This record gives sequence, structure tokens and C-alpha cells, in this order.
Amino acid sequence: MKKIVCLATLLLSICFTYAQELASPNGNFKMNFSLDASGSPVYSLAYKGKTVIKPSKLGIELKNDKHSFLHGFSIKNSESKTFDETWQPVWGEWKNIRNHYNEWAVTLHQNSGDRDLIIRFRLFNDGLGFRYEFSAQKNLIHFVIKEERTQFAMTGDHTAYWISGDYDTQEYDYTTSKLSEIRGKFKEARSSNASQTSFSETAVQTSLMMKTAEGIYINLHEAALIDYSCMHLNLDDKNLVFESWLTPDTKGDKGTLQASCSSPWRTIIVSDDARDILASNMTINLNEPSKIKDVSWIKPVKYVGVWWEMITGKSTWAYTDGVPFGTEGTAAPKEVPSIKLGVTDFTKLKPNGKHGANTAHVKELIDFAALHGFDGVLVEGWNEGWEDWFGYHKDYVFDFVTPYPDFDLVGIREYAKSKGVKMIMHHETSGSVRNYERHLDTAFKFMKANNYD
Amino acid sequence: MKKIVCLATLLLSICFTYAQELASPNGNFKMNFSLDASGSPVYSLAYKGKTVIKPSKLGIELKNDKHSFLHGFSIKNSESKTFDETWQPVWGEWKNIRNHYNEWAVTLHQNSGDRDLIIRFRLFNDGLGFRYEFSAQKNLIHFVIKEERTQFAMTGDHTAYWISGDYDTQEYDYTTSKLSEIRGKFKEARSSNASQTSFSETAVQTSLMMKTAEGIYINLHEAALIDYSCMHLNLDDKNLVFESWLTPDTKGDKGTLQASCSSPWRTIIVSDDARDILASNMTINLNEPSKIKDVSWIKPVKYVGVWWEMITGKSTWAYTDGVPFGTEGTAAPKEVPSIKLGVTDFTKLKPNGKHGANTAHVKELIDFAALHGFDGVLVEGWNEGWEDWFGYHKDYVFDFVTPYPDFDLVGIREYAKSKGVKMIMHHETSGSVRNYERHLDTAFKFMKANNYD
Repeated sequence: MKKIVCLATLLLSICFTYAQELASPNGNFKMNFSLDASGSPVYSLAYKGKTVIKPSKLGIELKNDKHSFLHGFSIKNSESKTFDETWQPVWGEWKNIRNHYNEWAVTLHQNSGDRDLIIRFRLFNDGLGFRYEFSAQKNLIHFVIKEERTQFAMTGDHTAYWISGDYDTQEYDYTTSKLSEIRGKFKEARSSNASQTSFSETAVQTSLMMKTAEGIYINLHEAALIDYSCMHLNLDDKNLVFESWLTPDTKGDKGTLQASCSSPWRTIIVSDDARDILASNMTINLNEPSKIKDVSWIKPVKYVGVWWEMITGKSTWAYTDGVPFGTEGTAAPKEVPSIKLGVTDFTKLKPNGKHGANTAHVKELIDFAALHGFDGVLVEGWNEGWEDWFGYHKDYVFDFVTPYPDFDLVGIREYAKSKGVKMIMHHETSGSVRNYERHLDTAFKFMKANNYD
Repeated sequence: MKKIVCLATLLLSICFTYAQELASPNGNFKMNFSLDASGSPVYSLAYKGKTVIKPSKLGIELKNDKHSFLHGFSIKNSESKTFDETWQPVWGEWKNIRNHYNEWAVTLHQNSGDRDLIIRFRLFNDGLGFRYEFSAQKNLIHFVIKEERTQFAMTGDHTAYWISGDYDTQEYDYTTSKLSEIRGKFKEARSSNASQTSFSETAVQTSLMMKTAEGIYINLHEAALIDYSCMHLNLDDKNLVFESWLTPDTKGDKGTLQASCSSPWRTIIVSDDARDILASNMTINLNEPSKIKDVSWIKPVKYVGVWWEMITGKSTWAYTDGVPFGTEGTAAPKEVPSIKLGVTDFTKLKPNGKHGANTAHVKELIDFAALHGFDGVLVEGWNEGWEDWFGYHKDYVFDFVTPYPDFDLVGIREYAKSKGVKMIMHHETSGSVRNYERHLDTAFKFMKANNYD
């Protein structure tokens, strides 16, 4: 691409053996896109003259697809433009954010399936973002993703700062190792967790940070994750090639989509200074602009709260250990409590004496917040139901409006008000999203009525 | 049971080889309950001295259960009572309904798993109902059903009036055949349907009606189906034994339960006069009493409407066939519509000319209803989204408030009001229950505001 036209589009010539190059505005990055002999899309990326992503395949595999959507493409259209805009976030580290990139949208056509696939690249001064776009077309309206086949071919056995791939949790410590050592460290990298589902010994989660032998930092991640499945990266540790691995639904499908739609952006942020990765605005530049018109209610706050002490085991979310009153010390309790919202009378159950969200303790934190200038106090475990928090696939697990007997909602509300501290209500879905959505309206009205606004 | 005590309970003696008999209030029915050599519960039923259900096993198989919940039971407790009450339904064929039965609740204890299972029988003058009850106990609070193993052993190769077992639809014609012929008629009994999932060639749906060679009618069904999976009946056609087959969730589980809870009632209605089966109130007597205190808004009505003409193919639910304006007759449409609520502008799409829920046609039906004394007019297909009604697992398939361009909601509302006819709004979930629950509040307010009350 010899000429970049600012905010204008340029139709490129279509040739048989297709291979084109795009540069970042500052010239530090160069990417190459081509179709290989089987008509599969391939890209590569170089930073300051050094390859950081070797030629890597792109593609999406569809479920029950008569014609594989991975091969047999030709170039139908190719457009490029330069974009340069400065915008202001509602809040964040920066008042002004510059969104500056060279864009390249390649429309691929597959003859056998008579379908188009658009791959859109945006090359910034701090890295590359690209995504798949599916226009509404006769042979591609409703479709199901079997797997996304986006590859990131590494140039060497980099040092990686990784957490193990898991469908349920990201709550692992980071492990630092060579890429080739990930498989061997699979077990030790996975501490015990209430909900965890592994799927590959070489899978890691995004964002994935790496460092090459030459001191170049490479970060793989995604942006604008909307109506699409979360991406893991699965390493082929013989060839040091990562491939996307989407999180499935209960049936094992990786996404039920309707065109027109697009994948999230896949991002590669690169620098020889690690601080640049953290300071990069590429991710938020690739996220969709805010659709919220009235942002006056968005107020960044600093808060203290009741939750970490539960993580460390000092106190509990639940009010009881499930033991009814009057059975302590007996061989077997006369009545075994089965916690059901609206049925179980918690005032009849024996408190475990370790419930974090109790009135006295919350008032202590309100005092602390007022004294040290914190804006708010967040409380987890204030509402009935935590005895069955997880593990049972329980549908009606919380109602989001009924406090435990030792959480004096009104007293705490008035005390916080008198101290000029905002109370922050915690809602735990426990993965029972349907139940949460059922109660959202009532729960939000309850928050509003009780000064949790 | 020699003595039936009205509304009182009688503790029966517990003996090693347990077998007891219960009679219906009028003595027409006699049932027997026992534990077999392996400690599995077994029941049988006789009508006017003739066996209608041969000894049949009872039980529930749990998922990941260390001790099978099907065997190893002993009798822990047994209570019986007579119940006789007359109640009035909100509406129905009868002003007064008599609920009269002899009840027998057997508490079984399983030593190996240290758990209880209660089986409650209610023997009416028109048949038998029984269910499983799970009290909250240390070793049985949260549990998952692998399969219910309730058997109904037939006495002969009865004539059956059946529809094929299916997880998705009950919309089949009834087939009349001998029990032994069900397997052979599997294919012809299953007409094509948009959503259908079979699971066994000898599975049938409830209610199942049968007629014995001696002219006795037997009906198998269920009552009080609450927080439990719908029951099919799978026939062992060598031994002519039906066994319960519950409808699974996506994971294949047959129910995720929390004690205390119970199964629906399994019902066996029997008579030598087929009319008695239809006239039986056993099912509604076994259903839970209404929890609705203010029933003033429940008004039985007769209505006509726009829906059967779509079933027969004369008209369509959808406003379009998915063709945009101005592309008719061209080789390929320039734009392929992908229907998205809030995005698709239906006024820009070409109507298919067969949309049933159009203003003129609905007004015709309002006239017809007014002329012939019908109370209301129900309209299906009035709202946007029917182009993607089924087949795509679409989440946001309807919003329940946006009419198609040719359905003049206000005009129809006012016209119906002027004719003294009530409009009835149709809501189609399309199986997207989550979407429906999200929109319920808004949809009901919309109905109320538009006189659909």
C-alpha cells in the first residue's frame, strides 16, 4: 500500500496471487495478508522490522456446513482507509484518547458456498486488531459456529505470563514459563476452585502476555466482545502456534449468530517497552463507542467493603452453616434445613457467628470510609440464599431484596447517610442469569428506594 | 386395611414381609403395595375384581448416586386416612367437585444411603393417583434425577389410542393400535413437524387411553406437574410394561430438585364406561389448589380468531417472505433481509400478500364475533418477528409490543371497543423463554394500555 488516503476508501486491484502489505501510521508495524494455495486467508505481522506473528491462518468453521468456510476463497474486494480521531471517555486515565489507525477491509468470496467473508484489519501505532464480518447474504443469515480458527504463530519459545484455559473461572494465579513448558505446568497452574472446567492442557486465557528472547512484549487479547463467545488460546506446542478456542454453550456450540454481525476484534499489542502494553488504548479504541447518552450518573468512586474477608476465610457470605436452632450437640439434627427463599425462616436458624455482612461490622466500615475519605461501602452476603450459592444449579438462588436477619438494611442506610457515605449493593447472579433477569426490575427499584443509587 | 378413619391418621404395624391393601371409598378399586425381595417398592391395582395393573415397580434413579435409590428399602412408617371434601372451581363444567379418596403414605428407608422416600397413594372412586415425596434430610437435599422408574404393567395387548413420544411436540394425530403394534407404526404415526425429537420407537405421550379386551378403559396420565419434567411412557413391548421416561434438559438430566419436594401425581383412571374417563375429576382433585386469591379477573370466554387459517396454509403469521421492495423479478435481490427487531424496517419490505393478521381481516372477525355473540377475537401473527419464528434458536425473536405495518393496533382496538368485542393478544415465546420473561412487564403494560385486558 503505497498511498494511504485519510478517511477515504481506495479500491485495490484484484489479482490472482494475492498478497498485500499494510503499515501502521508511524511505520513501526507492517502486516501482510495473502491467500494460500488452498484459498485460506493468511496474515503475518512485523514490528520494527522483526516478525512477531509468522504467517498464520484465519477462518471460522461453521456447524453443519456443506462447504468448509475455511478454504476456497478468492478476493472480491479490498478497501483501505486511514482513521484519525480524538475522543473523550466518560472516565478513565486519559481525558483525550486518540484513535488512529490504517484500516484494510478484505472481502473474500467462496465460490463453492457462494458466500462472502469480510476480514477487517486495523493497524495502530501500538499493534494490530482484526475481526471477521458477516454481511447478510442469501447463504449466510443464521449460522452456528463450530470453532473459530484464528491462528497466532509465534516466532520462538517465548516467556509467557499465563493462566490456564477454563470455561468457568479466571481466578487462577499467573504462571510464568516458556511456551513449551505450559503443558507440563498444567496441573500446578490450576489451584482448586468451586467452579472450574478445563478443556486442554495447553490452553491459556486472554489477555496473554509474552516476552521474546529479544525483549519484545507481545499481548494477545480481544476487544468488543459482544454477542459472541469468549476466546481462549490453545497452543500447538510443537509448532508454537496459538489457535482461538471459543467457550461453548451447553450443547457444545460455540455461537449462534445472525448476519449481519461480526466477531470481536482479535488484538496483538506489541512493544519493546512493557509499560506501553498497559498504557495502550487499542482495546478501548476497538470497543464500540458508548451508547449511553446521559452519562451523568456514572461516577467513579473509591470504596471499601465486605468481601475480601470472605475470600480469605475470615468470615462467610452465608448467615448460617445450615444448622437449625436447638439441635447443637445432638447426635443428629431433628430437622435438616433445606434453604428455600420465601419458605426458610432464617430467624429460626442458628447463625454461624462468622457472617461478614452484619450490621455492627458494616457500620465499622462506614466509619472507616468516612474517616479516610472513601466514597462508598460495598457489602457482599447481605441477602438471603448464600448457603446454596453454588454447586447445585439452583434456579431461584437469590431474590436480591431480602436481607439476612443480622443485616439491618434501614439502620445501615440511615447510618451511611448520616456519615455521607454511599452504600453499594452487591448482586450475585451465581450463574442463574434467568433468575437475575426475572428480579432485575424489583431489585433496582429496591436499591433506588433504599438510597443505593 | 380393615378400618378407614376419616381425616385421621392410623399408624400401621411394621412387619418384615410387607404387603398391604387399600380400597377405594366405594370398594370398586383395590390396590396392593409391597416390597419385593430386593427391597424395591411394588404396587398393583384391581378394578371390580379384575387386575388392571399387574405388580409394577416404583422408584427414582438419581444421578451420581453412590447407592441406587431403587433397591434396599424397608418400611419405616405407614399412615392412612380418608379424605372427603367438596370444593368449587373458579370455572368449569361443575359447580361443586367432590374430592374423596382413601390415602396411604408409606415412608421407606434405605439403610445403605441412609435416606427416606415417601410414596403417597390416593385411591379414588375413579382410579389411583400416587407420587414420590422427598423430605429434606441430611443425605437428600439437592439431587438430580437420572430417570424415574415408575412402571405400569399391562394385563394384555390392549387397544391403545396414542401419540408418539416426542420431546418437542404433541401435535400428532392419534393412532389406534394394539400395544404390540406401536413399534411398527412408529414412522407413520409421526407426521412432519417444525420441531420434533423422538427418543424411542415404543414411547407414547400421556394422557394415554387404552381399552382392554374385556371392555375396560384405562387412562394413564399425570397431575400437579410443577417444577418437574413432563412424563412420557416407554413400552417394553415384550412384557407389555410401560415405564416413565422424563423429558431431559440440554445436558440430558431429567430434573434438578431440592427437597422437600415431590413428583407430580401419576394417575390411573379406570372405568368400564369410557364416558367416566372424560367426566373424571381425579386430575383436578390431585392438582394443587389455586393460589390466586382474587379470581374476579378470570372470565371464561368464547372467541374466534386468526390462527387456524395459518395452520391450514391459507395465510401466514409472517408479514413478508423475506423479500425487500423493488427486487422482485431481478435475478438476485440486491439486499437479503435478515430480520432483526428494532433494526429491520418492515415498511421497506415487500408484504407477502398472505399475512393473516391484517387490519381489514381482523375487523371482519370483530364483525363476525359481534354478530354471533362471541366475546373476543384472538389474533396471532400481529407482531414483528414471525419470519424467524422457529429453527434458529433465536434469542430476541419477539418484543411483544411492535405490530407489523398492516396491523393497525389503535384502529382495531377502537373498532373492537365500538362493537363490544374484546381483543385477545397472542404472545408466542418460540421457546425463547428468557426473552419472553425479559419483556413480560412491558408486554403486559402494553396489553393493559391497549384494552387487551
